[in-house]
Amino acid sequence: MGVITLLTDFGTADGYAGVLHGVILRINPQATVVDLSHAITAQDVRGAAFALFTAYSYFAPDTIHVAVVDPGVGSARRAIAVRSACGTFVAPDNGLLSYVLARERVLEMVHLTEPRYWLAPLSATFHGRDVFAPVAAHLSLGVPLCALGVPLSDPMRFDVPRAQQFRDGSIRGEVLHVDRYGNLVTNVPGAWLVGGRDWRVRVAGREVRGVRNAYARVAAGELLTLVGSSGYLEIAVRDGNAAAALGANLGTEVRVFP
Amino acid sequence: MGVITLLTDFGTADGYAGVLHGVILRINPQATVVDLSHAITAQDVRGAAFALFTAYSYFAPDTIHVAVVDPGVGSARRAIAVRSACGTFVAPDNGLLSYVLARERVLEMVHLTEPRYWLAPLSATFHGRDVFAPVAAHLSLGVPLCALGVPLSDPMRFDVPRAQQFRDGSIRGEVLHVDRYGNLVTNVPGAWLVGGRDWRVRVAGREVRGVRNAYARVAAGELLTLVGSSGYLEIAVRDGNAAAALGANLGTEVRVFP
Amino acid sequence: MGVITLLTDFGTADGYAGVLHGVILRINPQATVVDLSHAITAQDVRGAAFALFTAYSYFAPDTIHVAVVDPGVGSARRAIAVRSACGTFVAPDNGLLSYVLARERVLEMVHLTEPRYWLAPLSATFHGRDVFAPVAAHLSLGVPLCALGVPLSDPMRFDVPRAQQFRDGSIRGEVLHVDRYGNLVTNVPGAWLVGGRDWRVRVAGREVRGVRNAYARVAAGELLTLVGSSGYLEIAVRDGNAAAALGANLGTEVRVFP
Repeated sequence: MGVITLLTDFGTADGYAGVLHGVILRINPQATVVDLSHAITAQDVRGAAFALFTAYSYFAPDTIHVAVVDPGVGSARRAIAVRSACGTFVAPDNGLLSYVLARERVLEMVHLTEPRYWLAPLSATFHGRDVFAPVAAHLSLGVPLCALGVPLSDPMRFDVPRAQQFRDGSIRGEVLHVDRYGNLVTNVPGAWLVGGRDWRVRVAGREVRGVRNAYARVAAGELLTLVGSSGYLEIAVRDGNAAAALGANLGTEVRVFP
Repeated sequence: MGVITLLTDFGTADGYAGVLHGVILRINPQATVVDLSHAITAQDVRGAAFALFTAYSYFAPDTIHVAVVDPGVGSARRAIAVRSACGTFVAPDNGLLSYVLARERVLEMVHLTEPRYWLAPLSATFHGRDVFAPVAAHLSLGVPLCALGVPLSDPMRFDVPRAQQFRDGSIRGEVLHVDRYGNLVTNVPGAWLVGGRDWRVRVAGREVRGVRNAYARVAAGELLTLVGSSGYLEIAVRDGNAAAALGANLGTEVRVFP
Repeated sequence: MGVITLLTDFGTADGYAGVLHGVILRINPQATVVDLSHAITAQDVRGAAFALFTAYSYFAPDTIHVAVVDPGVGSARRAIAVRSACGTFVAPDNGLLSYVLARERVLEMVHLTEPRYWLAPLSATFHGRDVFAPVAAHLSLGVPLCALGVPLSDPMRFDVPRAQQFRDGSIRGEVLHVDRYGNLVTNVPGAWLVGGRDWRVRVAGREVRGVRNAYARVAAGELLTLVGSSGYLEIAVRDGNAAAALGANLGTEVRVFP
């Protein structure tokens, strides 16, 4: 048994992603390996961190999530594993787990230092294959986290930008993610937007009135805002691409007024 | 046990497709989940319908096929499940099953109304995660279709364009699908083209003589027609792209003369 | 049991890749099917051969690897299966196994001629579905290779370009593969580059001093050479794209001087 998910920037054309399946199945032939994504933009640690954040909580808590976007491979950057009540995570220590660490309580965290659970020889350029995949496979077989390395308390994290609420009731947030449909996912919690009908959302020089609850509430081509499937404010164009229409992107400021 | 296939327009970069695996495996850890495709063009219901048509009949009849291209999510569009002798299908009621319904006899069909088999809280924008994936997982565990909702008799279907045969023996059809190689898949049944050598095929102002039985029957770069792997007339360029070469597309008329 | 990998140029948008899963699972519901890649450039036999070479040795030796890039489908090209100590391979006989055959000792090799292990009717255009997938599924159930066809001794192979070492200690090789990051993977074995600090690598009019052991050894945007994860000399740009920066491509000559 044991579900292991893979999230990388390897693409699928080179066979590198397939290699991870081979390494895992060779160690644990019973593992169920799920490709979360191999289409993260090359070396986009933040994008990968967000995709992991979107997905991990829908898996059973005994799932092992392997995330490898690793521009620092071969440098002094550490390899880490983190266990929480909602999943175990194996990744380079470069901020990839920032969103997870911002939401989950850590039960155990180690710096992966035990080469007996890696492939040998260890390459300097492909720790997905040589470190992260075999470590995940051994975890899925029941090897305890503490056997894989030494305790760690200071994982690298980038600031997860949080939206702010002001005295006048207005909110300032920003775009955290642009998805494949061009929807702008912000960091403004849906829970702050009770009584959506009256809010005005300003983004990229445009203002939208009212927070809807479905794309289908407006006509095709029309701009709308809604609380998206992750529970945050989203800006979308029905049957269109809001990022392109607004020239908005990661980090674009979003203001909300009551 | 239980095979569940997934066909969506989610792409793979955002992690949304991975979420479906998580939801299903959490309900049925024994399920085998197959990604039919997550690369359907965003909101292209017809393209998804055709890809499903291409694939489903090659799976065992107890397979559950989940198809989610869902521009109307959150509106009044229904969610449905359909059981046939060749598979069970779970999808939004927006025409996605049109090709399947045109070929298969329906044994049972329900409007999915039973929230006990969905995730809670139900989002208004991601029913793939909250409705379709969990319903498929419960079906794979043996929950009967009738427990999931109320009987349905009028699913939405778009017209599946059928080719016509005329008295003079000629045929009029159209392009149903352009595949990744640029091959034009038409709706002209191969069974109508017995004695292929003598047919003339006209498409986009070009005429091709003879229906071949393999790409390799002509020189590289040459236009040819053949009965493709789905059993329908295809127009192709050997080692090339017929759609680009001919400026043809979905709906382009195809005439065949004896 | 039984792991079967799939490597094709089918893309994922059309559902063709999904069909292979269906065919296999219908014959062997216990098989674990791994998508190595369906993103090989259409009809790029050499690219597929290299991706297979990158991946196969990381799977258990009882794995069955199905590789289908098949521009000659329907012609006289043969379908073959090859068993080595490191895996069993099923593919069209068009050079796809050239790298494997250059490295592995063949234990058994057959021309697939036994239609009882294929789908019927046999199409002329989709042997991935009708021949290669069902043959792999039957192999995974224990059908011996010899039952699937007749012995074969002359598989088609393209020349696998080998690097040369000259008397003056210099080396001439070439680029075998450009990966998704734009890294140039050459055919110069890392084992030839002991004492990397002193080597000079010339490629596309540029010279780089020293063979590093990790991307992170140079500043962002800087050109470097290193022994890559496959054990061969690679030319890379840290956090950049070497192929684009150098205008290099498959076959570009690489010279190394002591």
